[in-house]
Amino acid sequence: MSNKQDHPDSNLFPHATGLAHKIVGEHQAEQPLKLYSGWFCPFVQRAWTVLEEKKIPYQYIEVNPYHKPDSLLKLNPRGLVPTLQYDNKPLYESTVICEFLEDAYPDHGPRLLPKDPFDRARTRIWTDFCTSRIIPAFHRFLQFQPMDDKAGLEEARKEFLDKLNEFAKEMDEAGPFFLGEEPSLIDFVIAPWIMRLWVFDHYKGGLGIPKDDAAWDRFRTYQKALEERPSIKNTLSEKEHYLPIYQRYADNTAQSELAKATRKGRGVP
Amino acid sequence: MSNKQDHPDSNLFPHATGLAHKIVGEHQAEQPLKLYSGWFCPFVQRAWTVLEEKKIPYQYIEVNPYHKPDSLLKLNPRGLVPTLQYDNKPLYESTVICEFLEDAYPDHGPRLLPKDPFDRARTRIWTDFCTSRIIPAFHRFLQFQPMDDKAGLEEARKEFLDKLNEFAKEMDEAGPFFLGEEPSLIDFVIAPWIMRLWVFDHYKGGLGIPKDDAAWDRFRTYQKALEERPSIKNTLSEKEHYLPIYQRYADNTAQSELAKATRKGRGVP
Ligand SMILES: N[C@@H](CCC(=O)N[C@@H](CS)C(=O)NCC(=O)O)C(=O)O
Ligand SMILES: N[C@@H](CCC(=O)N[C@@H](CS)C(=O)NCC(=O)O)C(=O)O
Repeated sequence: MSNKQDHPDSNLFPHATGLAHKIVGEHQAEQPLKLYSGWFCPFVQRAWTVLEEKKIPYQYIEVNPYHKPDSLLKLNPRGLVPTLQYDNKPLYESTVICEFLEDAYPDHGPRLLPKDPFDRARTRIWTDFCTSRIIPAFHRFLQFQPMDDKAGLEEARKEFLDKLNEFAKEMDEAGPFFLGEEPSLIDFVIAPWIMRLWVFDHYKGGLGIPKDDAAWDRFRTYQKALEERPSIKNTLSEKEHYLPIYQRYADNTAQSELAKATRKGRGVP
Repeated sequence: MSNKQDHPDSNLFPHATGLAHKIVGEHQAEQPLKLYSGWFCPFVQRAWTVLEEKKIPYQYIEVNPYHKPDSLLKLNPRGLVPTLQYDNKPLYESTVICEFLEDAYPDHGPRLLPKDPFDRARTRIWTDFCTSRIIPAFHRFLQFQPMDDKAGLEEARKEFLDKLNEFAKEMDEAGPFFLGEEPSLIDFVIAPWIMRLWVFDHYKGGLGIPKDDAAWDRFRTYQKALEERPSIKNTLSEKEHYLPIYQRYADNTAQSELAKATRKGRGVP
C-alpha cells in the first residue's frame, strides 16, 4: 500500500467532527452489520442517513478510501466507500445498499419506496436522475478549469442549474420532500450534494439560483427540509474539514475515481 | 418536427423483420399496456424480452425515436424508447420498466430478482455494472476513430474485454445464466449487447476473445444460453437491417443521444 502514500487525499482529516462525531461515538460497539465509511463521503452519507432513519443497529468503521486498507479491499475490490458487511458478506454501491436496507429490514420505517408499482418506478426514475445527471453536472461545474474561461464556467454552471431545475419541477407541489410529506429514497440519494452546495459559493463565485421563480422556490423549500432532517444534519462534519478535500476538486487536482472520471467526461464511478 | 428530417436515422428501416416481425404481428390489438418501441433498439429489447418472458398482454407500437412523433414526446419528454404507457400513465428508462413489470405483475414468472435481500442487492450491483461499465465501453470501442490508430483501437478493445471478463468472473459456475439455472434481471439487461457482439467482427476487426481461459469459456456458455432463449431470439430482426444503423456508429457519424454521449466520454443517456 505504501505506493499510495502520495495520493493527495491519503492524509485527509482522519475522523468525523461536529454532529457526525457524536453519532460515530454511539456506533463503535461490534455489530453483525458494519458500515465501512469515510466521514466526508457523500455516497456514504446516503447509506448512513438510511441506517439512522431506520434505526438499524450498525457498527461504524472509519477507513480512508484513498489509502485503502486491506480490510476494505478484501470486501470490495473496487476499494470504494460505502462498503457494507452483513453476516460477513460484502455489499457496495450506495443506492444498492439503501434498497438492501429497505429489503432486509422491512419493519423499519420510513419506507424508501412507495408500495404502488407505478409510484415505485417513478421514484426509481428520479433517483437514477440524481446519480446519472445531477451529480456528474455538479462535478463538471466544481472541477471546471481554467477559472478565467468565463464563458465555459457559465456553461458548466447553467448545465448544473438546468438539471436541478428539471428535478425541482418534478417534485410534489406541497412537499416538502420530493414525493410529499415523507422523505423517500430520492431524498436520501441527493441530500448529500444539496448539503454541499456551499462549495459553489466558496470556490466558483456562487450558484446564481434565480429568485421569483416557482420551481426554484420549491427547490428552496426542499433544501430547507433536507437541512433540518436530523439523519442528514447529524451525519455531517464541520465545514472546515471538508475544505481541503473540496479545494482539490475546485482546483481540479483531486485524484479520486470520481475526479478522474469527471476529467474524462464520464459519470459516477 | 420537420427540422428533424435530416437526422441520419430519421429514415431507418421502418419495422421489425425476421422473428421479431412475427411477435410484433401478434401484439397489434389495443391493450391498456402499450410499448412504444424501435425494433432495432437494445434498450427496448430489455423491456420487450421481459414482457415476452412474463407473458404480459401488451400492445406493440413502432415509433422512430430519431424522428420523434408527438405521441412519444407527450409521454416521455426525453423522447427515448422504450416508453411504456400503463393506464394512460407513462414510464421510461429500460431497467426501471423491467423492475416495474416485476412489481406490477407479481404472479408472472420468471422472477427477475431473487427473494433474499442480499441476493437481490448483488443482482442490482451487477445489473448496474452492465449499464454503467459494459455498455459505455462497448460504445467507446465501436465508435473508436480513426481506424488507423492501432494502439488506440487496441486499448478500446482491451477496455471492453476487461469489463466483460470481470462480469464473466462473477457468474455462477454452473450457470448457464448469470445467477444459475434460471435467467434474471442481469441477463435481460445485458443480452441485447451480447446479441450484437457481431458488430465488432463486422466493423472493428474482431473481438479477439482469448481461448483456453476459464472465465471466457464460462462467457461462451453464457452467450449460447442467451442466444437460445426464445424471448431473446424472437425479439431480434434480420441482421441486414441493423447494418446501416451500426455502420454510422462504427464510422462515429451516428447522431443518437448515446452516440453523442459516447463522443463526450459520457455514459448511457
Ligand atoms: N458508485 C459508488 C461511488 C462511491 C465513491 O466514489 N466513494 C468515494 C469516496 S466519496 C471513494 O471511495 N473513493 C475512493 C477512490 O476514488 O479511490 C457508490 O455509489 O457507492
Ligand atoms: N437510458 C435509456 C436509453 C434509451 C435509448 O437511448 N434509446 C434510444 C434508441 S436505442 C433512443 O430512443 N434514442 C433516441 C435519441 O437518441 O434521440 C433506457 O435505458 O431506456
